[in-house]
Amino acid sequence: MKTLKKQLDELQKLKFNSYGKDFLLTWEKSEDELRAVVALAELFSEMHQAGKSFRVFDTGLAISIFRDKSTRTRFSFASAVNALGLGLADMDEEKSQVAHGETVRETANMISFLAEVIGIRDDMYLGEGNKYMREVAAAVQEGFDTGVLHQRPNVINLQCDIDHPTQSMADLTYLKNHFGSLESLRGKKIAMSWAYSPSYGKPLSVPQGIIGLMTRFGMNVSLACPEGYGLLPEVVEIARQHGKKSGGSFAVVSGMEEAFRDADVVYPKSWAPYQVMQRRTSLLQKGDKDGLKALEKECLANNAKFKNWECDEKKMKLTRSGKALYMHCLPADISGVNCAQGEVSAAVFEKYRIATYREASFKPFVIAAMIFLARVKDFAGVLKGLAKD
Amino acid sequence: MKTLKKQLDELQKLKFNSYGKDFLLTWEKSEDELRAVVALAELFSEMHQAGKSFRVFDTGLAISIFRDKSTRTRFSFASAVNALGLGLADMDEEKSQVAHGETVRETANMISFLAEVIGIRDDMYLGEGNKYMREVAAAVQEGFDTGVLHQRPNVINLQCDIDHPTQSMADLTYLKNHFGSLESLRGKKIAMSWAYSPSYGKPLSVPQGIIGLMTRFGMNVSLACPEGYGLLPEVVEIARQHGKKSGGSFAVVSGMEEAFRDADVVYPKSWAPYQVMQRRTSLLQKGDKDGLKALEKECLANNAKFKNWECDEKKMKLTRSGKALYMHCLPADISGVNCAQGEVSAAVFEKYRIATYREASFKPFVIAAMIFLARVKDFAGVLKGLAKD
Amino acid sequence: MKTLKKQLDELQKLKFNSYGKDFLLTWEKSEDELRAVVALAELFSEMHQAGKSFRVFDTGLAISIFRDKSTRTRFSFASAVNALGLGLADMDEEKSQVAHGETVRETANMISFLAEVIGIRDDMYLGEGNKYMREVAAAVQEGFDTGVLHQRPNVINLQCDIDHPTQSMADLTYLKNHFGSLESLRGKKIAMSWAYSPSYGKPLSVPQGIIGLMTRFGMNVSLACPEGYGLLPEVVEIARQHGKKSGGSFAVVSGMEEAFRDADVVYPKSWAPYQVMQRRTSLLQKGDKDGLKALEKECLANNAKFKNWECDEKKMKLTRSGKALYMHCLPADISGVNCAQGEVSAAVFEKYRIATYREASFKPFVIAAMIFLARVKDFAGVLKGLAKD
Repeated sequence: MKTLKKQLDELQKLKFNSYGKDFLLTWEKSEDELRAVVALAELFSEMHQAGKSFRVFDTGLAISIFRDKSTRTRFSFASAVNALGLGLADMDEEKSQVAHGETVRETANMISFLAEVIGIRDDMYLGEGNKYMREVAAAVQEGFDTGVLHQRPNVINLQCDIDHPTQSMADLTYLKNHFGSLESLRGKKIAMSWAYSPSYGKPLSVPQGIIGLMTRFGMNVSLACPEGYGLLPEVVEIARQHGKKSGGSFAVVSGMEEAFRDADVVYPKSWAPYQVMQRRTSLLQKGDKDGLKALEKECLANNAKFKNWECDEKKMKLTRSGKALYMHCLPADISGVNCAQGEVSAAVFEKYRIATYREASFKPFVIAAMIFLARVKDFAGVLKGLAKD
Repeated sequence: MKTLKKQLDELQKLKFNSYGKDFLLTWEKSEDELRAVVALAELFSEMHQAGKSFRVFDTGLAISIFRDKSTRTRFSFASAVNALGLGLADMDEEKSQVAHGETVRETANMISFLAEVIGIRDDMYLGEGNKYMREVAAAVQEGFDTGVLHQRPNVINLQCDIDHPTQSMADLTYLKNHFGSLESLRGKKIAMSWAYSPSYGKPLSVPQGIIGLMTRFGMNVSLACPEGYGLLPEVVEIARQHGKKSGGSFAVVSGMEEAFRDADVVYPKSWAPYQVMQRRTSLLQKGDKDGLKALEKECLANNAKFKNWECDEKKMKLTRSGKALYMHCLPADISGVNCAQGEVSAAVFEKYRIATYREASFKPFVIAAMIFLARVKDFAGVLKGLAKD
Repeated sequence: MKTLKKQLDELQKLKFNSYGKDFLLTWEKSEDELRAVVALAELFSEMHQAGKSFRVFDTGLAISIFRDKSTRTRFSFASAVNALGLGLADMDEEKSQVAHGETVRETANMISFLAEVIGIRDDMYLGEGNKYMREVAAAVQEGFDTGVLHQRPNVINLQCDIDHPTQSMADLTYLKNHFGSLESLRGKKIAMSWAYSPSYGKPLSVPQGIIGLMTRFGMNVSLACPEGYGLLPEVVEIARQHGKKSGGSFAVVSGMEEAFRDADVVYPKSWAPYQVMQRRTSLLQKGDKDGLKALEKECLANNAKFKNWECDEKKMKLTRSGKALYMHCLPADISGVNCAQGEVSAAVFEKYRIATYREASFKPFVIAAMIFLARVKDFAGVLKGLAKD
């Protein structure tokens, strides 16, 4: 396989060590670690297309904990661990008795005796999701340090309150694939814009993941949202720092139009203001149903002021040569298709529909790459072995 | 393995190409395709009994979508895909957010990046189940044609509103096994008869599957049901055509007794009239609970007029030498066992109980054969390889 | 592997035949059968730690039926069957239609065509759980005897109303590991004591499993509980007989303090009196919600009289040199941690917390050993083969 040789060369030039490490936030990873995930994801995708197996495990468990509904990520994780040879064991908290606090560390160990990896989605409560993942990681670390666990399973963030690294890394892999290389992303403008949706309470992790990641690869990131729809200030600051350091840039602009102007890529997507997510988290924790209803009503009324934040053909004409790449993590709220008015017009979405599927197609391979690099010490040697088969 | 050689010879004499094809209705398949499934199912069963593996996949996913409760088919599918080396990923629509229409084509692709096969049960709504399977198939075809999917997973009908091909093909394999050959089925009479049940709303797919399939192999099929309990007219017409073409026959007769007379095989089973299923579908779609209750009441009252449609020893005496083979897809409503009065008397059922288990035992192997022929291009070569191990 | 050779020698000295046998109650097994499970569980644990696979199946299903919530046992079973190479298929009774009586034997066969093992947890109803397991076992035996099943899957008791053998065998393996050998357990005192919990209705299977098993290996077992909190009389009698025969002893003593005095091991754990479980079973079967509430109220009020049955540092000082090993099947009710007052003080639990995790860590390997010995005829030859890889 010619590609395999090229990708292996690319991987071996990188200086990184992901072995035994969790994947919780992209900005905790070195640039080379991220490049390695992208390169390996592409390689796995090509191997799969060529009918070549990249199975490295004979047995072993991958555990998933989904604290929110999921289709895409659930099947991406299932696909990735199956391709690597692991068995999937879903931790259904309704079928067990898991409480917070004291018992997270106990439960984490109880399920991990033969586990290689633990994938967690926990994106409902601001300030909770990523923290929970770290509690699980600390618990299995203690289990390993005290000899209870023979191996220390790694935690993969399948979406939290802060970041959605399997999504943003799949998006980055897609952009590399689309534009030809990571280098070609330098100087390209990406518009991460809020868009109107008839629902409320969508997580912040996708836009935060995008601005936190794309700024590292020299892109010019424009963030646009209505007043009061800000992202977590600490993540915005991270994006700003990344922009400075990478030779790209980060700017908060005042409207979808301004963000779209001369953009090479647009990513229009709804989210809830982080202040709303904070109030919602507090109400959810109290179990205050009336409060939640009142908040939803207030927010939907507020959202309704911004129905013109729709990605339509007119706005797309503002982009570079009117031909920006449209991206979405899916499912999108498409005006006149699955809602009366939504994030994107039917005409724009239909034009890019297959492209968004392709964007999504990298996720299983990105997850497989993350697991592979975390769990296979001599990854280069093992990859060469796989190539020979 | 002597059997293997014989079955391979049998398979290689057949002219067919099932590679890359869905299995949605038996009457869309050529006779040789059906013969191949039967031959391979028998072979797999014998290999399993001899402790020989027929695993052909190293990794890969099989996806199941059950839109109705299932034990037999769920475990048959799980068994088949495990034996072939695939991992099972169940699409639980309650844990995801699947809507009809626009998003079927999206979801189908999102779950299929590493999928080889998609098994679907959707038998609740008349006019919907088979249609839904075709929507899924069209969606993954588009995904494959546009390069989103590296492979085009095949759809297997695990029971719809029209046909239940894994059941009818398992039944055919069982009949071949029982009578010695498919040829020996020619001229044999099978009575597909309605039978009384204290429940209502049982799908039409089993009787429709039986009359649509057995008529192709030269059997004389007698269909009996009370007035107003007709099957879908288009399927009845298909059975009639099959009977003419195959040298067998198809006849609608007026009572269980007439159907049983001189029958070699009897298949007494309850179902709801298709007109009732149409009304039920419409009420279910409207969410009209009162309407559904009223319909149930009306139907149960109507059913109650036909309590004498029970397969008992007296009626069994009417069959050829009083020794017809009793068949059922299970679970049966057995008088005095799991209901006061049902489809079959306890004495008749007990006599054939183990035989009905054997009948069911072919289902996992039939499903494995369907998948194998759809997914393994050089099936004969691969089978020879499996035989050598 | 040096250990492998030692363990194989140990295994080969034992006289037993577990091939094709269910594991339902430890006291139905010979002492050598139990020793074999312990030896093999230790070996599997060491192989796993050394990164050596003990996979013996290429394909095949393991079925789990959980009629009660479970985390530990669910994941232990999932881990064990994955390590052996089996696919897990959970029988979710809500997604199927399983009734008692007539259809247990039918359903058991329908799910078992390609099954190697069936793990069952059924601990809610006194007089029901173990009986249900035997019904399943008899059903698949009939299926095998009549040629319906190619193989007869074995039933593993994952906790019933009488015994919890995967727990007690993991506990025994842990004790062997802790004290160095099974022989060193002779003459050691273990206190199986009731302890206060703010909940009611905990199963009897753990204390019954402990007194029924540890008495066989020459331990001096002291059972303590408040008046009216007795275990099943027939199990108490079995423990008494075992004590006599093994050179150990069994005694019912009147308080936690007396049980703890000079104990080498303490196992303080809450359970419901068997008389209460009988009343509860009867109310559950009738669906009498008011009766259940009244019973819970009565029992909690009665429990509250025994809040001083807490394993605290003062009571631990009564044990041999104040240094007894504390054991628990987890999760424990820890005073001031997950309840106001519970089975054990926070100080005692924290001291032994990691030890209880280690205790639990043997369960997946014990289950794997049970399955291996039941399913692999030439176990010694196969183990030698695994060692060579």
